[in-house]
Amino acid sequence: MNININLDNNKSYEILIDKLPELSFDKKVLIVTNPKVSGFHIKYLMDRLKAKEIYIVTVPDGENHKNMQTIEFILDRCFEHKLDRKSLLVAFGGGVIGDMTGFAASIYQRGIEFIQIPTTLLSQVDASVGGKTGVNNRFGKNLVGAFHQPNAVYIDTYFLKTLPVRDFVSGIAEIIKMAVMFDKDFFEWLENADLSYDSNVKYAIKRAIELKAEVVSQDEREAGVRAVLNYGHTFAHVVENFTNYEKFFHGEAVSIGMVMANELALALHLIDEVESKKIIALLKKYNLPVSFKVEDAEKFYEAFLLDKKSSDSKIKFILPNSIGSYSIKDSIDKKIILTILEKFS
Amino acid sequence: MNININLDNNKSYEILIDKLPELSFDKKVLIVTNPKVSGFHIKYLMDRLKAKEIYIVTVPDGENHKNMQTIEFILDRCFEHKLDRKSLLVAFGGGVIGDMTGFAASIYQRGIEFIQIPTTLLSQVDASVGGKTGVNNRFGKNLVGAFHQPNAVYIDTYFLKTLPVRDFVSGIAEIIKMAVMFDKDFFEWLENADLSYDSNVKYAIKRAIELKAEVVSQDEREAGVRAVLNYGHTFAHVVENFTNYEKFFHGEAVSIGMVMANELALALHLIDEVESKKIIALLKKYNLPVSFKVEDAEKFYEAFLLDKKSSDSKIKFILPNSIGSYSIKDSIDKKIILTILEKFS
Repeated sequence: MNININLDNNKSYEILIDKLPELSFDKKVLIVTNPKVSGFHIKYLMDRLKAKEIYIVTVPDGENHKNMQTIEFILDRCFEHKLDRKSLLVAFGGGVIGDMTGFAASIYQRGIEFIQIPTTLLSQVDASVGGKTGVNNRFGKNLVGAFHQPNAVYIDTYFLKTLPVRDFVSGIAEIIKMAVMFDKDFFEWLENADLSYDSNVKYAIKRAIELKAEVVSQDEREAGVRAVLNYGHTFAHVVENFTNYEKFFHGEAVSIGMVMANELALALHLIDEVESKKIIALLKKYNLPVSFKVEDAEKFYEAFLLDKKSSDSKIKFILPNSIGSYSIKDSIDKKIILTILEKFS
Repeated sequence: MNININLDNNKSYEILIDKLPELSFDKKVLIVTNPKVSGFHIKYLMDRLKAKEIYIVTVPDGENHKNMQTIEFILDRCFEHKLDRKSLLVAFGGGVIGDMTGFAASIYQRGIEFIQIPTTLLSQVDASVGGKTGVNNRFGKNLVGAFHQPNAVYIDTYFLKTLPVRDFVSGIAEIIKMAVMFDKDFFEWLENADLSYDSNVKYAIKRAIELKAEVVSQDEREAGVRAVLNYGHTFAHVVENFTNYEKFFHGEAVSIGMVMANELALALHLIDEVESKKIIALLKKYNLPVSFKVEDAEKFYEAFLLDKKSSDSKIKFILPNSIGSYSIKDSIDKKIILTILEKFS
């Protein structure tokens, strides 16, 4: 199945959810991957890829290598292999690989093309749609980067076979996020489905991408509605930061963040107890974490202000407004937020 | 006087050629400058700038500091001063400052706004128009970067008062380039004018920018006609590279490059002896260098292939086709080029 991402300026592209097709390019191609994905799947990719010249660069796995040094390492390989403005980068891995490959492509000779072949559920439903690329630094996550759209995204659930369970359910967290924000029917479908890599995960991926695509098409550069995709993330970023990006996978932190956002939505009477419990139940069904010990609510609150989503000291919260719709609130009284955070201590 | 740069997607902006007006911003502003410009002119700028908060970052002067380390230095200051997505960078200096400030702005939190206040003639006529930003690395010049348009450019010839003569005439080289490529009348005007910072340089800047603006508006991302702006540059980049960016100022290297391109145009009967001599005479009038010793023509030729302007081993030459018009040639016989290069030995 195909999903078309409609963007201005000939930047539209297609997402194919299917077995990876034969890909053939009359140009130099550089594949960016990590040791794990390469070990499991490089042959699978190679069997389906033809190009004028093919190079592979393997970078260390993990969020703590998603930095400017790795970008320079990738760029150096591009220069050594004499890639030109018509060459193509291929992101072959999870979200970290996708974000870095896209960023490298956006600044190599002021921008070359890239395609995404995401191999984790999280990157299939989330990171491969929307054109956000970038790296972390000592000030926080994804703080340096660019908007750079891929030329195509190929989603093949075959790769999920080798994905550890925690990575798999981390992806489900983002799927649940989309359902809570935008689609009550999809939420109910998820309550009844039993997602695993070879069953109906394909439909869930498709629906989550369709919902995200609709949002991104409306607001590519996050001037408005795209912010809704940050449901759970305002809290999750702080949780990740406080635990050095080590304790939780991104989707796990988002799961905790959604629970925190729900508590806030509950306090503001945007959702009721029944709905809140339904959301928590769905997260629990996939063994996603739903609690986190906030040591110091004041410090947690301060951390919001450092997060790039906040502008001019206003903290923007994305909250469910009953299941399947949302509210954006940017002037919630600090006291209310502290009260909620203290519940998590 | 005003020139409007028309680009797609709300990226159009205005270039004001006049005394720097009062600028007032309801946001955080970070000025990027170098010690020389700051020493001479920071007070002049400060007298005319109002903002919510104003920060200044001073980076070392010169092409050899135009690298990723300096970009990271600028970004770190942005983070320390907690600039957000609505903050503004101000490039206050020559082309190096402009290129780096624009690049930093393009990747800080995936892109923030910036304005240019160019203080050298070269950056006033050239670097501040077109949206090319970036840095050098060990593989060459401007190889990493982005297309990122400023929100406005303010050109005040007052700053040229403190500009050393070599910098001033380096800027004139780019003005002559525009005349040779696009405008015979302007070329003749230049033959008769006597440009100095307080005389008719303003008209020359205006005309050069108008010509460049027309080209950039047609072809923002250098897919076609914008390549014409590289007249003289294919040779100049090699000259600069071979002399470690130390011996010649950029405009001086371009002057040499134009003479080399002219020899090639002469050999291909695109211009005649009379025209070629007129161009050289105009360059000499401003004491621009017109000769360069090519030690090894073969090695010089090889260096073209490393230059990013070349794609797929074809070297693109921009040549005058009599004064005021141009040819683009990408399949000139290597032997002809070597013969020309050997004339410069």
